[in-house]
Amino acid sequence: LKVDCNGAKRDIRALWFSGRKLMMIDQRCLPHRVRVEEYRDHTEVATAIRDMVVRGAPSIGAAAAYGMCLAAMNDSDLLMAAKVLKAARPTANDLFFAVDHMLTRLSDGEDPVKAANAYADTIVNRCRTIGENGAPLITEGGRVMTHCNAGALATVDIGTALAPMRVAWEQGRKFFVYVSETRPRLQGMRLTAWELQNEGIPYAIIADSASGFYMRKGVDLIIVGADRITANGDFANKIGTYEKAVIAKALDIPFYVAAPISTFDLSLPTGDEIPIENRGEEEVIVIEGHAIAPAGATAFNPAFDVTPHEYVTGFITEAGILRPDEVRKIGGSDGE
Amino acid sequence: LKVDCNGAKRDIRALWFSGRKLMMIDQRCLPHRVRVEEYRDHTEVATAIRDMVVRGAPSIGAAAAYGMCLAAMNDSDLLMAAKVLKAARPTANDLFFAVDHMLTRLSDGEDPVKAANAYADTIVNRCRTIGENGAPLITEGGRVMTHCNAGALATVDIGTALAPMRVAWEQGRKFFVYVSETRPRLQGMRLTAWELQNEGIPYAIIADSASGFYMRKGVDLIIVGADRITANGDFANKIGTYEKAVIAKALDIPFYVAAPISTFDLSLPTGDEIPIENRGEEEVIVIEGHAIAPAGATAFNPAFDVTPHEYVTGFITEAGILRPDEVRKIGGSDGE
Repeated sequence: LKVDCNGAKRDIRALWFSGRKLMMIDQRCLPHRVRVEEYRDHTEVATAIRDMVVRGAPSIGAAAAYGMCLAAMNDSDLLMAAKVLKAARPTANDLFFAVDHMLTRLSDGEDPVKAANAYADTIVNRCRTIGENGAPLITEGGRVMTHCNAGALATVDIGTALAPMRVAWEQGRKFFVYVSETRPRLQGMRLTAWELQNEGIPYAIIADSASGFYMRKGVDLIIVGADRITANGDFANKIGTYEKAVIAKALDIPFYVAAPISTFDLSLPTGDEIPIENRGEEEVIVIEGHAIAPAGATAFNPAFDVTPHEYVTGFITEAGILRPDEVRKIGGSDGE
Repeated sequence: LKVDCNGAKRDIRALWFSGRKLMMIDQRCLPHRVRVEEYRDHTEVATAIRDMVVRGAPSIGAAAAYGMCLAAMNDSDLLMAAKVLKAARPTANDLFFAVDHMLTRLSDGEDPVKAANAYADTIVNRCRTIGENGAPLITEGGRVMTHCNAGALATVDIGTALAPMRVAWEQGRKFFVYVSETRPRLQGMRLTAWELQNEGIPYAIIADSASGFYMRKGVDLIIVGADRITANGDFANKIGTYEKAVIAKALDIPFYVAAPISTFDLSLPTGDEIPIENRGEEEVIVIEGHAIAPAGATAFNPAFDVTPHEYVTGFITEAGILRPDEVRKIGGSDGE
């Protein structure tokens, strides 16, 4: 993750452990300020996850793993810590996966820091492999569209949906990225645009509802991330993903989902069983501190939607590209 | 158009003529402030159209008609005034229709104020008829979705897409409206929500990209306005309309377009010939004076998209509900 820190280019992760503290970029301050905050116990980490200091399913998982690490170092009750962390947000599978993973490792007597660092390193390595597996889909001169931020910020480093773009760019291919702004929190405009700009990859921000306009003009490939993928190949991702998938199908545009195996939840048969987080209406009707809607207005704010498997061309994973009907094959693996 | 003016409920139009001045609600100040501005010549009116003090195809037409009226009263060159007004915005057919209509009336020696008032009254009467024609589509307990603002503000009074809702509400039916916020200028959140709230009709604002989520949950009817409708039944409307139409078709949700005959442009065979206005990128990346995107970011900002006729269930007009293949039937009429 390339960042510009006081004029110097640095390559850092979205979160990392230093001494007895978890360090995390406060993603709410981007793109204008790279502010790194310190966290000393698991309750602080749970709050940071809830308040979206850190967001993106794999980064949430890594933050939770470090939260469990802090709980162990502070001699907190591990089962209680697991409960607090798991309650921070409801949709991303990685959160539960990471906490359970750390519980197992810690009960096996493993060193907490080593175990949490290994968890984060594994995510980054998987993202690299996802990038390598997905890069051939991006052709010279191609027009790629993505939604929200499934970049380095969302995955400790490298990204899921952005990983194939990073690798294709490193391989010297030129292409163009349409970044949908991703209301209400504007993670596309704030975070994905910032990551692409730091890499030098050409892009344009568009209103979410201009996606169909540009798809109709000509988009070669859509890649998004996922928060949870179920056994039948349905998946949850940022609100607005479903719309892009439906339009892509109507226009015969390949639609790919990039995600590590830890995002797959084979315990759920279909996407209908994924709990969808409803966030506060202020996220929609108050922008940058300004109330936009008329006084007394009501707003609904589902954070995610579910896209049925029939709209997915393939899942780009560290184990290769899977068709939706191949998702069940990964059963038995816990993603290790 | 019910407004709350210093605590008193009033019923006014979005624009009206008073003395030798055109009065227009500055729609950019809504919903927080009802500010009425005065215009004394056609160049001021053209600027107001360009800067979106007034917006919505029929209201733009009425403003232009009053602009021609002012030009006549001020003894300005009428052909020059027509040119200036027509250049204000490129997509809405009503603008050209209204200016040409006034040129004919004025060259026939008609009184300018009388002619412009008649033009505005005709719009309002047509909207009332559109409302009556469309109201039976809204059933008790129904869930209706709309996009942008095709309400009283957009059409002098009553509205096009909102007209069937107003009439159904007057008839005593209860229903619920999903209002998509309509980035980048948020006319749904600012204007449609404000109109519905003033009428007492229950609604919720949603992010544009949550439309698909709620359509999948259950929406019974979508009604939008139009800026131009071509001979084959394609139509241009606010960016994001195309997306809703594609998703509605995938989910078998009836998708209606409410527009007066003046919005039909039978001189264009298909929607591909409609000029689409591209507006400045600041509308996307600067919100309420705050720059959101990273410094140096690029944004694209098409104001409209074209929806192909195969996605339209029907056009709700003052002449009844037309199927797309019936649009050609209205040829020969100039909408009078």
